[in-house]
Amino acid sequence: MADVAFQEYYPDELSHCYGCGRLNEDGLCIKSFWEGDEAVCHFRPHPYHTGPPGYVYGGLIASLIDCHSTATASATAYRRASRESGTAPAPRYVTASLHVDYRKPTPIDAVLELRAHVTEMSGRKIVVASTLSVDGVTCAEGVVVAVEMPDSMLQTAPGTDAHA
Amino acid sequence: MADVAFQEYYPDELSHCYGCGRLNEDGLCIKSFWEGDEAVCHFRPHPYHTGPPGYVYGGLIASLIDCHSTATASATAYRRASRESGTAPAPRYVTASLHVDYRKPTPIDAVLELRAHVTEMSGRKIVVASTLSVDGVTCAEGVVVAVEMPDSMLQTAPGTDAHA
Repeated sequence: MADVAFQEYYPDELSHCYGCGRLNEDGLCIKSFWEGDEAVCHFRPHPYHTGPPGYVYGGLIASLIDCHSTATASATAYRRASRESGTAPAPRYVTASLHVDYRKPTPIDAVLELRAHVTEMSGRKIVVASTLSVDGVTCAEGVVVAVEMPDSMLQTAPGTDAHA
Repeated sequence: MADVAFQEYYPDELSHCYGCGRLNEDGLCIKSFWEGDEAVCHFRPHPYHTGPPGYVYGGLIASLIDCHSTATASATAYRRASRESGTAPAPRYVTASLHVDYRKPTPIDAVLELRAHVTEMSGRKIVVASTLSVDGVTCAEGVVVAVEMPDSMLQTAPGTDAHA
């Protein structure tokens, strides 16, 4: 497994995301790594991430799948272009759609393992499929359609001077 | 709009959910109300709920759609049985699948409005479609397949004595 997480390569102005931004002290700060052609992320929920007693709430699972998948898309874009990770301009992806199938209740007192792989690439779109498992048992499956973040999204962001 | 939120009727042992539990001090504590046949929820994100600068992160949107939809399913179950809200046993629903289409970036410095309605009911399943909008502009659309929470899920919840 590589030493540096995909999210470490995000430029500062895009590193405040609640799910994956390394500069968001209130956020989840997930970290994703290549393991061959799979992207892997481990996350231990806090006790307050509960849904029904003893189980993770579904919104956290959706959040993890979302951010891990867009990170996987970004890292894939580097690979596809044979570019070294972290070189500018950083390929950044946003979520066009997110689908999660909850297969089993996910125990909260456990390390969750996400494994993602790319199933489709075309133009500005990368489709990422993933599983979330605990101790080898799949608890949820996700599919994210990620699209390259348009420049206009940064230029028109309200209430920010990130690109001033 | 009714005065009492759907979530106020959840029994205490099921009121710790990060998304919708009134007893989770760290959580989102969303509140959903009937407005005719639509269930409505308003939520103002915190600044740390950012995704790209100035916009809400997608995981929060998924979380809101998820919990608002299962609350709508629960409230619908009361209506379908012609039962008064809050009477025991409380009908509680969990998410079998969640789908979100992100139509536009969602500004973070705004009140988000979720509107949900039931599109299908069969047996233990209730399907809920919803929109998330800001100032009348739809930013995301969701579909949640909610299923009645099995008793076994409570009885086997690890690390809890909620039903002891």
